[in-house]
Amino acid sequence: MDYIKGLEEKRIFEISDVLSGDWIGKEITIKGAVHTIRDMSQFSFIILRNYQGLVQCVLEEGKVQDFQLKNIREGATVEAKGILSAEDRAPNGFEVRLTDIRILSVPAEDAIMPLPISKWKLNTSLEAKLSLRPISLRNIRERAIFKIQEGIVRAFRDFLFKQHFTEIRTPKIVAGNAEGGANVFKLEYFGKKAFLAQSPQFYKQTMVGVYDRVFEAAPVFRAEKHNTARHLNEYTSLDFEMGYIDGFEDIMNMEGAMLKYIFAFLKKEYPKEIKILGINIPEASHIPAVRFDEAKVLISEKYDRKIKDPYDLEPEEETLIGKYFKEEYNSDFVFVTHYPSKKRPFYAMDDPTDPKFTLSFDLLFKGMEITTGGQRIHSYEAQVDKMIKRGMDPEEFSNYLMIFKHGMPPHGGLGIGLERLTMKLLDEQNVRETTLFPRDVSRLEP
Amino acid sequence: MDYIKGLEEKRIFEISDVLSGDWIGKEITIKGAVHTIRDMSQFSFIILRNYQGLVQCVLEEGKVQDFQLKNIREGATVEAKGILSAEDRAPNGFEVRLTDIRILSVPAEDAIMPLPISKWKLNTSLEAKLSLRPISLRNIRERAIFKIQEGIVRAFRDFLFKQHFTEIRTPKIVAGNAEGGANVFKLEYFGKKAFLAQSPQFYKQTMVGVYDRVFEAAPVFRAEKHNTARHLNEYTSLDFEMGYIDGFEDIMNMEGAMLKYIFAFLKKEYPKEIKILGINIPEASHIPAVRFDEAKVLISEKYDRKIKDPYDLEPEEETLIGKYFKEEYNSDFVFVTHYPSKKRPFYAMDDPTDPKFTLSFDLLFKGMEITTGGQRIHSYEAQVDKMIKRGMDPEEFSNYLMIFKHGMPPHGGLGIGLERLTMKLLDEQNVRETTLFPRDVSRLEP
Repeated sequence: MDYIKGLEEKRIFEISDVLSGDWIGKEITIKGAVHTIRDMSQFSFIILRNYQGLVQCVLEEGKVQDFQLKNIREGATVEAKGILSAEDRAPNGFEVRLTDIRILSVPAEDAIMPLPISKWKLNTSLEAKLSLRPISLRNIRERAIFKIQEGIVRAFRDFLFKQHFTEIRTPKIVAGNAEGGANVFKLEYFGKKAFLAQSPQFYKQTMVGVYDRVFEAAPVFRAEKHNTARHLNEYTSLDFEMGYIDGFEDIMNMEGAMLKYIFAFLKKEYPKEIKILGINIPEASHIPAVRFDEAKVLISEKYDRKIKDPYDLEPEEETLIGKYFKEEYNSDFVFVTHYPSKKRPFYAMDDPTDPKFTLSFDLLFKGMEITTGGQRIHSYEAQVDKMIKRGMDPEEFSNYLMIFKHGMPPHGGLGIGLERLTMKLLDEQNVRETTLFPRDVSRLEP
Repeated sequence: MDYIKGLEEKRIFEISDVLSGDWIGKEITIKGAVHTIRDMSQFSFIILRNYQGLVQCVLEEGKVQDFQLKNIREGATVEAKGILSAEDRAPNGFEVRLTDIRILSVPAEDAIMPLPISKWKLNTSLEAKLSLRPISLRNIRERAIFKIQEGIVRAFRDFLFKQHFTEIRTPKIVAGNAEGGANVFKLEYFGKKAFLAQSPQFYKQTMVGVYDRVFEAAPVFRAEKHNTARHLNEYTSLDFEMGYIDGFEDIMNMEGAMLKYIFAFLKKEYPKEIKILGINIPEASHIPAVRFDEAKVLISEKYDRKIKDPYDLEPEEETLIGKYFKEEYNSDFVFVTHYPSKKRPFYAMDDPTDPKFTLSFDLLFKGMEITTGGQRIHSYEAQVDKMIKRGMDPEEFSNYLMIFKHGMPPHGGLGIGLERLTMKLLDEQNVRETTLFPRDVSRLEP
């Protein structure tokens, strides 16, 4: 009988092994894809790419038996053996003088690389990058974007675990939808009508009744027809929901502390990607909070702009609020609080001092909404009452109302658009730049 | 201007604070939901429930001003202040002798708790538990199940990060499907036909071309019509995919090491839940591996069972293989390798020594398949060739084939059904027991 016993030590070197040990003058073995080849007549550079970066290999004439440069091309993968040498001009300050090279795989015979992925920055249209996403992501700068995104989610989870939140996984195929409106994808579910979840709202509130504090980082689906630079039809929502709050400020404070944690985590764990992308990590320890109605007046006065609708915030107004708080308070972030009740969903808690407004907020980052949150109604009677006032049938929501009927603590939470947060952090102009495989009105592939 | 500055220290105690400090005889404040009330005439027990467990509070007559027992019921949430006393018979060995109690929220006036959630074990049908899921999950034993599930996913991620994998997020709305067959949910996508992803297969292979090693823990969707104890229509798939492998044994070794890590992590981080659920953590450091065809012969001989179809494995045969390896090798796990080519998808790599079989495997845990994995084809020509032999049109897969055309390392990976793994670990009989909000042919709510 054969047994699977787990991992054994392999003698393949990673870039990090080379950098953390004393290997100069010694023979090492490294694996990677051929990123680019430069033929210098007496010798050639073969630059290998792996997940940690680039490795410069030097092929000197006659030094590697049974191997000729024409045997490999960009995209081949190899196992390369050679003597490690210090070389300041090479990536990471070293090169490998090849003594042996073994080809692991080769690209298609007639393949012509459609993008110059070995260039530092892909100077091509967003359209081309997206259509060739499987290849364009092999570019060093492009792939760094999604390492930063990985880091944001890791830090989000780490922080919330430290704050005693429980991670949950809620269904994406649902019978009803929390956010209302027409932007919902429908599907046929064994003869029943079903939807793709616009948010985990009902489920995360339900789970507050179980674990007090919960979070989820998962896809949500919006059938929005706007094809703008900031909308996606499928995105990752970083959701949390917390019970036993004293007010909706608790939620904003949790988010503020979380952003601080995320930025510190990125600096510690992703310095290479921060450098590659030239990111300026913002300050989040001191975020101004302004009422919705006051914010409208402030920008109307400063930028001489007429208030058209006192109960709505246009994207241009968001941009101006961002500008205002950057100019006046030097902050990239601003919480806008007390959104009008009629612009918030039926589960939002109205402000008892003025029920035209809610105990809710958006967080703007460089003038764009990246978070919507607030306190929720927790009383069964108040929730049924608000549903009836909105012309909704409480009978249709009996599974949701069950949680209030049998008792819920005061609670609230928020949802953060991961791709938008990444976009603003990287100063990108289009949310598709920070989405691995974006879905929009006209894009379903790759 | 108001500022949001992040978290401030609160003077609310958690059970863990009480257990880790010297608070006996001192006044503490704790929050929770009223789990159960026992009126003992001279005094009453009010048992509070929060995410860390149960807290016994003692209400002595006349000790709390302006408060009467009739003011609260099961499901109310409160902030309770009192003197901490040691009490061996109370949960966690302490009780709180109340000096003050503040009601934070109350259930609906006429609500009657539909399940005795304060009982240790809910002795009710699975059907009732699922229909009342938002409430049944408030039972201490029920919610422990999903803490274990949280722990499995945390450990899965932790382990893979240590092994230099990158976490990815791939789209769930897709244009084509990897696994083939009819069990796919269709949806209307702005006038185009789209599907819900049966697996992240194409995308995780694509991302091996970018990061060498990747993983994802995310929902997958299968429109299977079987309504069995082990099928779900939406489940969480723990997927990883790794490049630069020497053979498919590398994938099995990675999984073996991962399982060992998961089990050690659960013992360390979730001892309370292991105790509540009475889990016997299995041994995974030495997993037998047997060829598919040999396994069929072994059980046919030992259990005197005729082999009906040499190229298929029935669920009963899986059960018997599990039984065989438990009896003969005392192992809860067994890798079954070299599945027949015609039972594996078009991307599976055939065994060069006998192309009727593939370099693939399933992992059985207590006689049930919890993982399917294997080496994938990495050559463009070989992949196109196999597609054509299967009557597929390579043109329809041009986005996928792009990765092979421009070079892919030898690679492979696997997918683990999270709910099934949890089910077998907990010795549950139905996968719905270990699914937060299961989706099956007849269940779309709650």
